[in-house]
Amino acid sequence: MSLPASSPTADEVLQVRPGKWTLTIVTLLRSEKLRFNELRRVTGGISQKTLTLTLRELERDGFVQRTMFATIPPRVDYELTELGRGLLELADSLRVFTLRNRAEIEEARRRYDAAGGEPAIQLIHPA
Amino acid sequence: MSLPASSPTADEVLQVRPGKWTLTIVTLLRSEKLRFNELRRVTGGISQKTLTLTLRELERDGFVQRTMFATIPPRVDYELTELGRGLLELADSLRVFTLRNRAEIEEARRRYDAAGGEPAIQLIHPA
Repeated sequence: MSLPASSPTADEVLQVRPGKWTLTIVTLLRSEKLRFNELRRVTGGISQKTLTLTLRELERDGFVQRTMFATIPPRVDYELTELGRGLLELADSLRVFTLRNRAEIEEARRRYDAAGGEPAIQLIHPA
Repeated sequence: MSLPASSPTADEVLQVRPGKWTLTIVTLLRSEKLRFNELRRVTGGISQKTLTLTLRELERDGFVQRTMFATIPPRVDYELTELGRGLLELADSLRVFTLRNRAEIEEARRRYDAAGGEPAIQLIHPA
């Protein structure tokens, strides 16, 4: 998650933005530890590179803990930290919001696509 | 924002994920309409292409309304819809969470960087 380095100004605060997969990964780790390949399998579309980068950022920010086991073959588990559980709550809020407004979002898309991406309002002769 | 097309399964629900700039743009439109170039100026680092795609997605989902004025030169305003105000609330929650946990996140980063990206826990001889 992008976070400004020093004390925040209005501009910097605006730059807090999770990566596209951040909240998905956090959600997948809700109830259990998962290994890299398990995460990759369950996310489907995500590339190995994107998953690696997302996990690294989550670990660096303290949301996810990575544990290595020196087994053969080596095993690496990922799990949420306490801080990560806070982020999971936000991911849940976003998901609830989206599901609750699903019909409205889908209707907006139908309108947009039917209009071929033209804006809903065009004032040809402005006041 | 990526949203599955039909009724949600567990897998699909996980795929609700805002783009990296979605919440930033929504936040910028909190108190006033803005034009494309104003949005571009205030976001700084965003490319024209990314801003265009983010705005198009927000408009398509019904979070942002675009209004064209046939002035010379043409003018295009972007503003939040009611649905967009709901998304803004979520963006605010995320921002509050991040600011509240700022010290902890920064401490996690210091540890991570000091360890050169090695995991905090390595069990050489697993139980």
